[in-house]
Amino acid sequence: MPSIDLNADAGESFGPWKMGSDEELFPLLSSVNLATGFHAGDPLTMRRSIALARKHGVAVGAHPGFPDLVGFGRRDLAVTPEQAYADTLYQIGALAAFLKVEGALLHHVKPHGALYLQMLRNEATAEAVARAVRDYDPELPLVLLPNTPMEAAAARVGVRFVREAFPDRAYLSDGRLAPRSLDGALIRDPERAAERAVQMVLEGKVAALDGGEVEVRAETLCVHGDNPEAVAIARAVRRALETAGVDVRSYR
Amino acid sequence: MPSIDLNADAGESFGPWKMGSDEELFPLLSSVNLATGFHAGDPLTMRRSIALARKHGVAVGAHPGFPDLVGFGRRDLAVTPEQAYADTLYQIGALAAFLKVEGALLHHVKPHGALYLQMLRNEATAEAVARAVRDYDPELPLVLLPNTPMEAAAARVGVRFVREAFPDRAYLSDGRLAPRSLDGALIRDPERAAERAVQMVLEGKVAALDGGEVEVRAETLCVHGDNPEAVAIARAVRRALETAGVDVRSYR
Amino acid sequence: MPSIDLNADAGESFGPWKMGSDEELFPLLSSVNLATGFHAGDPLTMRRSIALARKHGVAVGAHPGFPDLVGFGRRDLAVTPEQAYADTLYQIGALAAFLKVEGALLHHVKPHGALYLQMLRNEATAEAVARAVRDYDPELPLVLLPNTPMEAAAARVGVRFVREAFPDRAYLSDGRLAPRSLDGALIRDPERAAERAVQMVLEGKVAALDGGEVEVRAETLCVHGDNPEAVAIARAVRRALETAGVDVRSYR
Amino acid sequence: MPSIDLNADAGESFGPWKMGSDEELFPLLSSVNLATGFHAGDPLTMRRSIALARKHGVAVGAHPGFPDLVGFGRRDLAVTPEQAYADTLYQIGALAAFLKVEGALLHHVKPHGALYLQMLRNEATAEAVARAVRDYDPELPLVLLPNTPMEAAAARVGVRFVREAFPDRAYLSDGRLAPRSLDGALIRDPERAAERAVQMVLEGKVAALDGGEVEVRAETLCVHGDNPEAVAIARAVRRALETAGVDVRSYR
Repeated sequence: MPSIDLNADAGESFGPWKMGSDEELFPLLSSVNLATGFHAGDPLTMRRSIALARKHGVAVGAHPGFPDLVGFGRRDLAVTPEQAYADTLYQIGALAAFLKVEGALLHHVKPHGALYLQMLRNEATAEAVARAVRDYDPELPLVLLPNTPMEAAAARVGVRFVREAFPDRAYLSDGRLAPRSLDGALIRDPERAAERAVQMVLEGKVAALDGGEVEVRAETLCVHGDNPEAVAIARAVRRALETAGVDVRSYR
Repeated sequence: MPSIDLNADAGESFGPWKMGSDEELFPLLSSVNLATGFHAGDPLTMRRSIALARKHGVAVGAHPGFPDLVGFGRRDLAVTPEQAYADTLYQIGALAAFLKVEGALLHHVKPHGALYLQMLRNEATAEAVARAVRDYDPELPLVLLPNTPMEAAAARVGVRFVREAFPDRAYLSDGRLAPRSLDGALIRDPERAAERAVQMVLEGKVAALDGGEVEVRAETLCVHGDNPEAVAIARAVRRALETAGVDVRSYR
Repeated sequence: MPSIDLNADAGESFGPWKMGSDEELFPLLSSVNLATGFHAGDPLTMRRSIALARKHGVAVGAHPGFPDLVGFGRRDLAVTPEQAYADTLYQIGALAAFLKVEGALLHHVKPHGALYLQMLRNEATAEAVARAVRDYDPELPLVLLPNTPMEAAAARVGVRFVREAFPDRAYLSDGRLAPRSLDGALIRDPERAAERAVQMVLEGKVAALDGGEVEVRAETLCVHGDNPEAVAIARAVRRALETAGVDVRSYR
Repeated sequence: MPSIDLNADAGESFGPWKMGSDEELFPLLSSVNLATGFHAGDPLTMRRSIALARKHGVAVGAHPGFPDLVGFGRRDLAVTPEQAYADTLYQIGALAAFLKVEGALLHHVKPHGALYLQMLRNEATAEAVARAVRDYDPELPLVLLPNTPMEAAAARVGVRFVREAFPDRAYLSDGRLAPRSLDGALIRDPERAAERAVQMVLEGKVAALDGGEVEVRAETLCVHGDNPEAVAIARAVRRALETAGVDVRSYR
């Protein structure tokens, strides 16, 4: 029976401010990437998000970001590799402590926002983050976008990694994600995203935005947690996968 | 052969700003309490401070504080027990990650500044911090001031704890530290601090500021790291202890 | 024709996180207290909130708070008077700059949350904040709770001040606000809050929670902006005041 | 009698952490650029730095930077023009308030670190900062590096601007500052820096690092405040200028 992990960014509230629909979203997922205090997520939020994840049997990963709360970690920041390494390690350890007191283990690490994007084009940053994950625990998977400098850096560093794909994003025929500026880059229709998710898992390919098909192989599918359609998309994707006989469960 | 631990707060630089004389101080100590990012100490500083501590064979503990950088964690903040627990756990985990990648273990936890002082008078805060330490690792010692509500709370919670004494602070005959506002509360003469350190270890008592003697029993002596005389006091204390045949080494 | 100002805290979003219903609330008010970056409100939020206020002809005041974003300025912080003065001045100046570029003037200052509460019991803090307001502009009104140490301090300092009352909070017969822990301290029924608002303005008194009546004289009524009923209460209060022939407009 | 302004970045302490030698430096300068809380400088530090500046008759400008304390505003941050505008305005207003209560006026604005550097290559950022300065006060000068996109943007926006030059930095024959990576880019010898300062003022040109001479015309000379030789360089520059009959005084 084929299986796939379904992940989303979560735990992105901060202090008195709420973000996302974690209560509705978590039952639909098999893993979550929890904000770790630098771009969102304070210690209490982290604790509560872990409790929610465990209630629903969802695996918990760390979602480290740039130290830019007001910018939500979405603005590129020119960090040195040493800073990227240390900031990542700090955030991993902080989240892991909340899991440890629950007798649980950190499941994976997935960088957030502008840090993730910087890792797609800057190998020094990508290597630094990958080394932090590997040094912390050689068995800990780093979630990444395949066929990118990020994957090359991870392979060089020797970190365990897991490839992700985006059923609600269009791909170009060369394998890259279609830039958000292109018409049709974002797939807002839950049923269409669901159909693409099934194709990705069962066929390993989807239609490309610029014509033809593109190979997309992944161990985890990401549904975006911070848009209004997030819950509807997650629900449709999960239902379609299960209907197609795909087991939605995490990879470890 | 009698033995004692010698500790100081350290790693209290932040970003471009330096504080303290860690390079000179570490060789004189057997353990350090490293700032963990909330009141001082950023991820890079934590990493470098651990490298320095390991170079000198010094045990590394976490020094969590209030999230108040501009106030250096020295201003009382009305946290809830839930916040005290979560903030402490977050900071412990963050520091522990830097030790883990070095193959080292977190040695102890000693709260900082206004958090430490709040634990001396607020049992709910003291219990919350003690629970965070115990939940993280039942063998992890919490360094505290004996004969205080802080110790009572720690005992109730069942955390392992280690008592500290201050050779450069005067005591009252009832066992309490003399308030800093009293004349003579701070002992700035390195030789006098050193003499008191030896007395504390060998006799378990020192002269009280208000007359008579006071029992002072501790497993660790703290020398303050952030005043100009810190290095001179640490050097005098260490030399006097060794001359008196006391082994300066950590307690675990 | 009697008149009254109607104020609410606003502009309390931060970065990507939204708070409150400013779009619905502003048309119902005559003045707003905008967060100034320390407990909520970032520069862009401040700019947008001022644009919204000006669109609706609402006077804009500064709402300085403690530098405690994660605690939303609601946790008491042991600041020195020098810190309270400097933090207040900093925040006033920052907001005033956004008004200056619009050709508008800062209308008033109303401290936020735990800072406001600290001013009710700590005269040194109250005087420091009052001095900051007066030094910045001797004509700038400080909004405060009458019959408190806060008012006494303001009078001593010689700052211009404006008294506020709370139609959605119960009062005790001695003039104090009923503590939130008492049953009935919060008035959630919009119509009842509205009725009390009219009484406060036309009669200068309302029923006390512990029996009898209590004098309540104020130049501005505050409706809380951060609870779900805020808009309903503001709407009911405004309508009732206008129906009773009270002119809702600001005091300067 | 020829005259020139001598400026340095200052007020860059933060909370308990000291930076620079403001007490020794201020008597040697005619203007200072004070950190405004985002990359360094807290409200109390701002207040004290203004007092020090006024004691020595030094003009006070704002030195806004990116909101990146741990990185000291030296890491490039991908801000939008709206954010650059709002962040600049916020910081200008905050500093201006401390001057206002002293009956003094804000003298100029000089962006800090990575913000200044971003303005050298990104015209949208440069325009946004220039608009913030102009909108705040059309008479307020923006200090900038001439012959750069920063100057072009300032000219387009119509902000008043003042050109600065660096006697302790080498120039290339095309007018640009020599990149720090080149040998000889930094001039550490106080006497040589002093000699270049005099040349810049009296002849409007200096020797270029790559041969020949380069025109350097400026209304203000910057001496770096955060290196160990800062005071020695400032002293030598000032003495040489006065010896050469140049009046060291500010431009407004």
